[in-house]
Amino acid sequence: MRLVDLIRKKRDGGELSIGEIEFIVRGYTAGDLPDYQISAWLMAVLLKGMTRAETAALTEAMLRSGEILEWSEFPQKKVDKHSTGGVGDKTSLILAPIVAAGGLLVPMISGRGLGHTGGTLDKLEAIPGFNVNLTSAQMRKVLAECGACMIGQTDSIVPADKKMYALRDVTGTVESPALICASIMSKKLAEGIDALVLDVKIGSGAFMKEEAAAAHLAELMVETGERMGKKVVALITDMDQPLGRAVGNALEVIECIEVLRGGGPQDLLDLSLELSAWMFYLGERTKTVEEGRKLAAELIASGKALENFRQMVSLQSGDARVLDDPSRFPAAQNKLDITSPSAGAVSRIDSEKMGIASLVLGGGRSTKEDVINPAVGIMIHKKVGDRVAAGEPLCTLYYDSSAQLQESRTLIESAYQVNSLLQQQKRPLIHRVIQGNTGSSAGQL
Amino acid sequence: MRLVDLIRKKRDGGELSIGEIEFIVRGYTAGDLPDYQISAWLMAVLLKGMTRAETAALTEAMLRSGEILEWSEFPQKKVDKHSTGGVGDKTSLILAPIVAAGGLLVPMISGRGLGHTGGTLDKLEAIPGFNVNLTSAQMRKVLAECGACMIGQTDSIVPADKKMYALRDVTGTVESPALICASIMSKKLAEGIDALVLDVKIGSGAFMKEEAAAAHLAELMVETGERMGKKVVALITDMDQPLGRAVGNALEVIECIEVLRGGGPQDLLDLSLELSAWMFYLGERTKTVEEGRKLAAELIASGKALENFRQMVSLQSGDARVLDDPSRFPAAQNKLDITSPSAGAVSRIDSEKMGIASLVLGGGRSTKEDVINPAVGIMIHKKVGDRVAAGEPLCTLYYDSSAQLQESRTLIESAYQVNSLLQQQKRPLIHRVIQGNTGSSAGQL
Repeated sequence: MRLVDLIRKKRDGGELSIGEIEFIVRGYTAGDLPDYQISAWLMAVLLKGMTRAETAALTEAMLRSGEILEWSEFPQKKVDKHSTGGVGDKTSLILAPIVAAGGLLVPMISGRGLGHTGGTLDKLEAIPGFNVNLTSAQMRKVLAECGACMIGQTDSIVPADKKMYALRDVTGTVESPALICASIMSKKLAEGIDALVLDVKIGSGAFMKEEAAAAHLAELMVETGERMGKKVVALITDMDQPLGRAVGNALEVIECIEVLRGGGPQDLLDLSLELSAWMFYLGERTKTVEEGRKLAAELIASGKALENFRQMVSLQSGDARVLDDPSRFPAAQNKLDITSPSAGAVSRIDSEKMGIASLVLGGGRSTKEDVINPAVGIMIHKKVGDRVAAGEPLCTLYYDSSAQLQESRTLIESAYQVNSLLQQQKRPLIHRVIQGNTGSSAGQL
Repeated sequence: MRLVDLIRKKRDGGELSIGEIEFIVRGYTAGDLPDYQISAWLMAVLLKGMTRAETAALTEAMLRSGEILEWSEFPQKKVDKHSTGGVGDKTSLILAPIVAAGGLLVPMISGRGLGHTGGTLDKLEAIPGFNVNLTSAQMRKVLAECGACMIGQTDSIVPADKKMYALRDVTGTVESPALICASIMSKKLAEGIDALVLDVKIGSGAFMKEEAAAAHLAELMVETGERMGKKVVALITDMDQPLGRAVGNALEVIECIEVLRGGGPQDLLDLSLELSAWMFYLGERTKTVEEGRKLAAELIASGKALENFRQMVSLQSGDARVLDDPSRFPAAQNKLDITSPSAGAVSRIDSEKMGIASLVLGGGRSTKEDVINPAVGIMIHKKVGDRVAAGEPLCTLYYDSSAQLQESRTLIESAYQVNSLLQQQKRPLIHRVIQGNTGSSAGQL
């Protein structure tokens, strides 16, 4: 088999066989196939597409390029959630303890933030001492004790994706649904899970702004997961304004603790309950999604979810005292209110701008090498639809250095739109639910 | 400027500016841009295409990546011909001396054969002592004395093409009209010529089998040349059967000498006269193509073209005695007639198979490292439309080793089709003439 022939086949719109795709993934991971051929192939894939069968074969080959975690000593179903990324998107920290407290196993491997979106690992590391780099044995121990564990990607899991993603990033071949699907699904399925809930974001703060593109990717991921024998559902959810009120690592963890305590912003609670409910349902803990929703709410009300989180934080070397005393979190030295220039109602908050406004304060990374300041960020007081008086604060910036303050402020001022018109059509939090066998259905909370 | 942004722009169907294309060509030639990004860009170019303006900019940037020859001390117009390659395609050796004898300058840089097609340099090297590797000063001297010079590619001419072609070859990005055009035209225009005649082949022995694809490439090359201020014409000519009767290096040179002596096969003579005529016309040596045809025929009849060839061979260290004594050419030790299995008329000769049949005897190269045996080849006795008796020779194989004889024989037997039906529609030798400003016109000899 010669790679140049496979490049030509894909270039001419042909369908690659399982063996051909395995040859490419295995050869590239082993270093036998050069970058310059793989990048030409990736571009041909992006422009000519892949069939569902090819996408599944690519996902499977990437999955098998490394270690697949295995939890056969645990009797409970293994479930996880993956989000395509957003601003203020912190649900993992809420639903992992809920679902583990409900009796399922959540062996979660997360990523770091890049660009305007945050990353779960960065949020966890705002908890003093929290260790996201566990060995396989350490992860087992945490899971055995509390049922949930949240760690970072290791070198042994899907090495093909690490190499291929780095190449895609510099060759304009990121935006292929087939390649995105294979990258996400191979990493998630390497966790050794039975079921997966996908949170596919759309709107100004998401990578995909339009519902059609998001639905296409969601369908692809659901079908690919099911072809590989997993239960998968995708929720197309709204990221047109930040989720909750906190943007920034420590601020977001504090908000998660509030939700686990029974408080917190309604949209964040609603989405966390919905995602937990689907995890319970797919993990066969409840017979319906509705039952799952009730169970999740009960686990918050009883304090069991919060206790689970406390346990996990301790087991992963974090200072669990932060749960009761938020002042133990790293805190920014300064704060600044951004006020409304006029009276009216908030008609729009551009989430991407809000994410970048937090990033430039030090809350995110422009390059992989940047070091994050966990203390900085934004607390949002007025969300879309909220009425505001002239001069009333829209949000508060938390910052340490005033170097990037003006840039951040300008971004926020251009992110907010305040209109004098009263009525504002609210976007639904959940736009659509995409299931495999039953197809797609309009979703309502 | 970042290459990844230019890759994305082309991937999304955008048009690159002259500056952007220069950035790519200059950076790649200098080694500042990596193969893996260029190959992704090449695939995007192949699948999304280039506008005429982009193609011209690419050609110009590649041309300027190296030395452009300059002949201002010569008062006459500088002209050349380029063929896209065929089997038995030996016209360069005939028309260069004709056109130089007619008073124009022919500073010809040629290539070697690869695959089933032959190369001018390999043919010239069948002449004992002939040196195709001249310095710039040596080339000047030969041109000053006889007006024509035939040499190989040097490292200083269009280095961008050498690097890019090697990458295209292994990344499935050869078959792009824009990239083919830029590769051919940059190398030819680096010769410092005023006018160029393109011989674009179609049929079983050509790289392009169909007229539509060939015409598209031809139009692109003509327009690109004219955008760069050159006179260019393209003749779409037939390569559905080998040109002339000789296939193989020494055999082909002997056939060229026969044509220059006023003999030789009619199709080879006709095409050589036609190409010479266009060179005379574009080089402003004659007022019409018809006059050019007459002049070319006169230069053969008077022996002046042959004398010019004799002079060039001597000046390039070749043994000019071969012109009068073909036995001085390297000769194969054995020969074998391939006979017709039945009586009838030849309806088809697959040229690609004929080219490979000569190649496997040692007349061509499978890889760039193969050494050519100039003596071996095929003499064709029956061409399409010729009547043949059962058992009568169709062609004769000249070979040294019998190792590949059976493979060659099988190829030839499958290349020939002899039908009992008498009438056979003859394909025209010249299918079409494509000129820039006057557009395309059906061509007749």
